[in-house]
Amino acid sequence: EMPMVLFGGMNVLESRDLAMQIAEHYVEVTRRLNIPYVFKASFDKANRSSLTSFRGPGLDEGLKILQEIKETFQVPLITDVHEPYQAAPVAEVCDIIQLPAFLSRQTDLVQAMAKTGAVINIKKAQFLAPQEMKHILKKCEEAGNSKLILCERGSSFGYNNLVVDMLGFSIMKEMGYPVMFDATHALQMPGGRSDSADGRRALVAQLSRAGLAQGIAGLFLEAHPDPTQAKCDGPCALPLDKLEPYLAQMKAVDELVKSFPPLITE
Amino acid sequence: EMPMVLFGGMNVLESRDLAMQIAEHYVEVTRRLNIPYVFKASFDKANRSSLTSFRGPGLDEGLKILQEIKETFQVPLITDVHEPYQAAPVAEVCDIIQLPAFLSRQTDLVQAMAKTGAVINIKKAQFLAPQEMKHILKKCEEAGNSKLILCERGSSFGYNNLVVDMLGFSIMKEMGYPVMFDATHALQMPGGRSDSADGRRALVAQLSRAGLAQGIAGLFLEAHPDPTQAKCDGPCALPLDKLEPYLAQMKAVDELVKSFPPLITE
Amino acid sequence: EMPMVLFGGMNVLESRDLAMQIAEHYVEVTRRLNIPYVFKASFDKANRSSLTSFRGPGLDEGLKILQEIKETFQVPLITDVHEPYQAAPVAEVCDIIQLPAFLSRQTDLVQAMAKTGAVINIKKAQFLAPQEMKHILKKCEEAGNSKLILCERGSSFGYNNLVVDMLGFSIMKEMGYPVMFDATHALQMPGGRSDSADGRRALVAQLSRAGLAQGIAGLFLEAHPDPTQAKCDGPCALPLDKLEPYLAQMKAVDELVKSFPPLITE
Amino acid sequence: EMPMVLFGGMNVLESRDLAMQIAEHYVEVTRRLNIPYVFKASFDKANRSSLTSFRGPGLDEGLKILQEIKETFQVPLITDVHEPYQAAPVAEVCDIIQLPAFLSRQTDLVQAMAKTGAVINIKKAQFLAPQEMKHILKKCEEAGNSKLILCERGSSFGYNNLVVDMLGFSIMKEMGYPVMFDATHALQMPGGRSDSADGRRALVAQLSRAGLAQGIAGLFLEAHPDPTQAKCDGPCALPLDKLEPYLAQMKAVDELVKSFPPLITE
Repeated sequence: EMPMVLFGGMNVLESRDLAMQIAEHYVEVTRRLNIPYVFKASFDKANRSSLTSFRGPGLDEGLKILQEIKETFQVPLITDVHEPYQAAPVAEVCDIIQLPAFLSRQTDLVQAMAKTGAVINIKKAQFLAPQEMKHILKKCEEAGNSKLILCERGSSFGYNNLVVDMLGFSIMKEMGYPVMFDATHALQMPGGRSDSADGRRALVAQLSRAGLAQGIAGLFLEAHPDPTQAKCDGPCALPLDKLEPYLAQMKAVDELVKSFPPLITE
Repeated sequence: EMPMVLFGGMNVLESRDLAMQIAEHYVEVTRRLNIPYVFKASFDKANRSSLTSFRGPGLDEGLKILQEIKETFQVPLITDVHEPYQAAPVAEVCDIIQLPAFLSRQTDLVQAMAKTGAVINIKKAQFLAPQEMKHILKKCEEAGNSKLILCERGSSFGYNNLVVDMLGFSIMKEMGYPVMFDATHALQMPGGRSDSADGRRALVAQLSRAGLAQGIAGLFLEAHPDPTQAKCDGPCALPLDKLEPYLAQMKAVDELVKSFPPLITE
Repeated sequence: EMPMVLFGGMNVLESRDLAMQIAEHYVEVTRRLNIPYVFKASFDKANRSSLTSFRGPGLDEGLKILQEIKETFQVPLITDVHEPYQAAPVAEVCDIIQLPAFLSRQTDLVQAMAKTGAVINIKKAQFLAPQEMKHILKKCEEAGNSKLILCERGSSFGYNNLVVDMLGFSIMKEMGYPVMFDATHALQMPGGRSDSADGRRALVAQLSRAGLAQGIAGLFLEAHPDPTQAKCDGPCALPLDKLEPYLAQMKAVDELVKSFPPLITE
Repeated sequence: EMPMVLFGGMNVLESRDLAMQIAEHYVEVTRRLNIPYVFKASFDKANRSSLTSFRGPGLDEGLKILQEIKETFQVPLITDVHEPYQAAPVAEVCDIIQLPAFLSRQTDLVQAMAKTGAVINIKKAQFLAPQEMKHILKKCEEAGNSKLILCERGSSFGYNNLVVDMLGFSIMKEMGYPVMFDATHALQMPGGRSDSADGRRALVAQLSRAGLAQGIAGLFLEAHPDPTQAKCDGPCALPLDKLEPYLAQMKAVDELVKSFPPLITE
């Protein structure tokens, strides 16, 4: 078992300068902690609650910023794709392309992403059981791509709430692909604010530790220098200045759990 | 309050001949029962569990079949749209265009559909609270379209199960738009079969009656001459030869409930 | 299929005079509407959120009030039992004794109630699937009592919310016993107030109609002359002056649904 | 923060000899690992699915066995109480008395238990939100007992399934009392077998690690020399011969997490 990796960054590319600042901090911290690192940011938030919500710089401008980050900091990139036509241009710049949770069953999008040959990070939809992820994996494999990652981000639990079923990690791990944990989005309370989701960032370390205690491939994380001013999902974002102590905890849990000898209790 | 309408037809356009046969039966039955009727069928099933599942004839061939049904039987049409580019051509043929549940928060799709000026049937996603539908309505209104319909189809209830919260109908009715009930898809058990959803068609009348007892605009229904042979969602489909007794029940419940004087119990 | 019966009354016996007043109104209305009627009230609320919440007059005083109601109005009685020792004395006065939802799996209580020979109304716990009710029925049968009734009152749906799965009625009806619907308690929002449950009494007619549309044995209902002043579960109680128009609706739905010829859609 | 404690033992007292054997093994292992230890076993399983299920030796015989274990191994004891009359005799033998989840809102039981002066372990019901546990704590306090422990054991998640909301631990910790994690019962799949609950003992280590990663007071655990032959809840029981490697993992996670400096991310 490999040490944890981090897909970390910001929610949406609010500006080139903020993206550079955030990337720089992630790079410094992950180098100090020796955590393999991939920068994450979205060029478009395609399913905001409101039409007037900030969506981001769009595909062209967004890829330009991502490219600059890649070159400046020599880091691989991950970003999410929302329509089939975006898959190819995104895969030219990004190393990992992400299938959004709500869209994870859209066959045309899966196929377009698979064809790029890029690694695909598959977000598990809030309405899917862990067992059902095998269908999406198979769709990708049949479309010719086996460079796949599964990513947990919580399940619908009544209205306006998500819960992370920790048993799902083990079920997904048996499917033979790396399993990541998006602790940030699992903290969402969908529809919890008048025009957007609420979140529980005060508990990001606690929830992340539970996920890493499952012995998984790594973490997906969003941070912001001032979460109260973030243009999307601030209620779930880690304050950027807490990144280092947060990751130190996560790395320690990951190392400990992966040091355990196998234990069969069946 | 108007009498119930029916958005009824088949899941996917399996063939031109089957579509004509099914449409003919719906038309005859709804004329006998005097139920306003809109024919429904999908040209593409864009989110099947498996890559090899039947998807349908596609946009061009599908619209041709729908057009023939419209002309032959003089009925309005409804079908679902999955990508922004499909909205305009579909709206040229269909009177109502449908926003799929999983896609109901995709802003670009909502905007493209709104721009057509067609009536939009908004399926409530399995992960949304009834209260949250106001955001999608507002998105459509802000995009310039107020010819909107909301359609309940069940909420995620644990894994591989849906439940219909009957209280949600009243919440959505207060938003000022017609509310329909898709009893067919609410019968799904997602991921309940090895490579597709299972369903509970034995209970379609019971569940539909509960919905109509709320005093709603109408029903969304899929039927098939032989549900065991249907190419998609057969486990939820009404056997076509039960359409008339089924609709007779529904119409009777609808008429009774709408005959009640107002009753305020707050 | 028999016409619907009503188990109706008040939540807790707040006082002898209020109980008499409420019983009188139920008796008048149900006689006018020709609905078979059983008076319901609790002598003790054994699981209030708070120690200081009103619990009721207790066993002895409570049974005295119930006895007076029985004699005055010539109506059968139902009340709930919380400990094995209460079963026998309660069954001497009441025709139907009720197994509370939270306690529905407590074997000693089930056995003590079964031994009385009284009819038992089994409330379905919020944590049980409809299929699981067969175990409780079997417990009662094995303890020698087959005069059993099942009563739906909602399922846990995330935190602080209940949902009624309408499909559960059909599953329970196949178990061969009458199935009732407690619409009042299904309206609860557990933990929704600072020290008690909240409720949604504005929707009692809508929810009740959905249940009666399933073709069931009858309704369980609580009402109060002033729900805002009720000592328990006021947020779910029907205003007593709305009893007649409410029951008129329910009876009409019940009669209509039971007039339908059988419809097999399997 | 104190190191984790273990409330560990067996589900039901199947026999005096088996209880002695299991206690001996727990005592040896916890002494080697230096984990504070309390022996747990039930004298009665009061809510089995079936009337013919094994219930245990009963109060008198059960307390005799527990007393012998206490004297032989010099360990404190915990057992569960189901009716008010049992509280006092149980508290004479046991150091901690447990309020069962389904019964956690029964006021008379809570009061009887509080009056004994014993420490009370309050199991969180499957139908309660973590926030609601404050009401039960207050009930105990008002009844004069502040030696209280909260114990998580999973929440209803659809039918026949439980999920552990890891965020609930932090919410309950803020209430000022120790919070334990019953990983064994959280593995249940209620109603999952034809006449009893199923379970997922293969995942007991993974789920337990997630709970301990929250920084909690300790673990509640049931083990059996041959879980397939256990008379109750075998599907959830740890094989007894895996106790030492299992606890070694748990202790390591607990120590690590409690070594972290405070991290505020609000």
